[in-house]
Amino acid sequence: MERSKPMYGNGGTDGRVAIAVDFGGTNIKLGLVRQGQVVSRASLPSYSDQGLIGRLPAVEREIGRLLAERRLRPSDCAGLGIATPGMVDAEKGTILSINEKYADAVGFSFRDWARGAFDLRCVLENDARAALLGEIAYGAAVGETDAVLLTFGTGIGTAAVMNGRIVRGRHAQAGILGGHFATDIRGNACNCGNTGCLEAQAGHWALPALAKRHPGFAGSSLSRHGSLGYREIIEAAGSGDRVGAELLETLVAHWSAGIVNMIHAYDPETVVLSGGLMKSQAVLVPMLQEKVRQRSWTPWGEVKIVVSRDPDASVLWGLASLLNPK
Amino acid sequence: MERSKPMYGNGGTDGRVAIAVDFGGTNIKLGLVRQGQVVSRASLPSYSDQGLIGRLPAVEREIGRLLAERRLRPSDCAGLGIATPGMVDAEKGTILSINEKYADAVGFSFRDWARGAFDLRCVLENDARAALLGEIAYGAAVGETDAVLLTFGTGIGTAAVMNGRIVRGRHAQAGILGGHFATDIRGNACNCGNTGCLEAQAGHWALPALAKRHPGFAGSSLSRHGSLGYREIIEAAGSGDRVGAELLETLVAHWSAGIVNMIHAYDPETVVLSGGLMKSQAVLVPMLQEKVRQRSWTPWGEVKIVVSRDPDASVLWGLASLLNPK
Repeated sequence: MERSKPMYGNGGTDGRVAIAVDFGGTNIKLGLVRQGQVVSRASLPSYSDQGLIGRLPAVEREIGRLLAERRLRPSDCAGLGIATPGMVDAEKGTILSINEKYADAVGFSFRDWARGAFDLRCVLENDARAALLGEIAYGAAVGETDAVLLTFGTGIGTAAVMNGRIVRGRHAQAGILGGHFATDIRGNACNCGNTGCLEAQAGHWALPALAKRHPGFAGSSLSRHGSLGYREIIEAAGSGDRVGAELLETLVAHWSAGIVNMIHAYDPETVVLSGGLMKSQAVLVPMLQEKVRQRSWTPWGEVKIVVSRDPDASVLWGLASLLNPK
Repeated sequence: MERSKPMYGNGGTDGRVAIAVDFGGTNIKLGLVRQGQVVSRASLPSYSDQGLIGRLPAVEREIGRLLAERRLRPSDCAGLGIATPGMVDAEKGTILSINEKYADAVGFSFRDWARGAFDLRCVLENDARAALLGEIAYGAAVGETDAVLLTFGTGIGTAAVMNGRIVRGRHAQAGILGGHFATDIRGNACNCGNTGCLEAQAGHWALPALAKRHPGFAGSSLSRHGSLGYREIIEAAGSGDRVGAELLETLVAHWSAGIVNMIHAYDPETVVLSGGLMKSQAVLVPMLQEKVRQRSWTPWGEVKIVVSRDPDASVLWGLASLLNPK
């Protein structure tokens, strides 16, 4: 099949620093990236329930501090890259829709802000897309032309690269909604409006409700936890808790169905798994690989499943690669 | 967003006839297509349980007859287009994998056959992809650059066009596996190896098992049918049969989940529905539209849902458009 060259660069062959900011739900991660190295990093609390716009002065100060530490001026930099959850119009540099606490940023011009604050150009991208571009530029999927990413955090983010190009779609929503394919039409309502979405069944935020619906919950070690997430369920399963083991089995079925759906949708060579869930990769990845091998229809061979080595860096790398196109 | 021009022609602007053959599971449909008109049509029984290769002599004779009727020689034609179910390597002109009765055709060189039989070049494409290209060239989605198709026949076939190009993917399987996204991870084993596929829950072939599992089946009017398909269930629901109505509700939930999954995967402007199920479009389409409106996350607006006016012709049109690229 005809292969086109990837349209993304390697994050700074021109040697100039890219400023990268990743607006996560809990922390805002900042970095200076030069030739694929995150040469400086910082993190600020998001306070995302108070919105995004109000955090920009703090972000501006923190960027100023990182630049000063490296004796750089904004004019030494290639530009500013910003990642956020939600649907992003990369061309206009605005957020179209966000199913999170940053709703105040919909329609905000990050370009105008970057120009005003630093006199720099700005690229904006969905965080999962930036992560996948970063994994392809410097991470676990270097050089891949066809890859998908699933990142298991509070929600489940996804992205796809086909034939060397990030999949964006007509309205900027292609590739990023793999967490909102229904894997159980009899399942929970999702906060996106759909029913039975992967994320509403098996994302971190859905786990307390999932656990509490289990008939054995009250007698399980899980009932003694103040908060219930990926880690608590995996630990309970590992320590022989029957409810924990059953919940984990259900979750693995959903997660692997989500991976298979991404394979069936975008036909990748490689699947990159990322996010907080991958702290348990030693236990989980073999289980997921086995299920995916059984269930995916890939007569050409077997999809590689790899794990992000540095999820935070991958978003920053990806933003840098968008600022330094080949 | 940058829009590229569609890479497919209009099915014969040069005025030459395209020969098109659609290998369906029940019938092989043949046509001569000139400037978007199917000027001659014929149909042969598939006998698909006996394979595909054995039917080629009959196909060759029937093409010869159609050409003779129009006083055409093969050398007057632009080429031969062939559509089959399954995964097709359009570049090599071979079938890669087929989850149907035509398994004998995997790896067969349709190009060599067409050259030997007619001294014509040959294009091969998956039938749902050909149908979508045909709908875009002459059918219900004329001029769309971003569209998906779901065709509800024995199985559920799908295809996607993004930014004016048919979505094929690295291993020729992207776009066509929408019937094999899991919509119910607790559901039936599918003949593809996956569990809970849309097709295994709500495709025509899955309906007898679905109906018989309903606790009220024995007392339902449905138990008196020799065969059970889309039509019988829709008719039972329409005539007040409670089991029929409940089954239809389940099916509509699956079908609309399948449509939403295609929207979330490929971000189209338009969804084209096709296949035998659309004989009941007057009843079904309003139900599907309502569910899809509720459940799809499309902040940019509302996806149009249209129905193929001539599903058989759309495959033939699509093949002709592949033979006459702009």
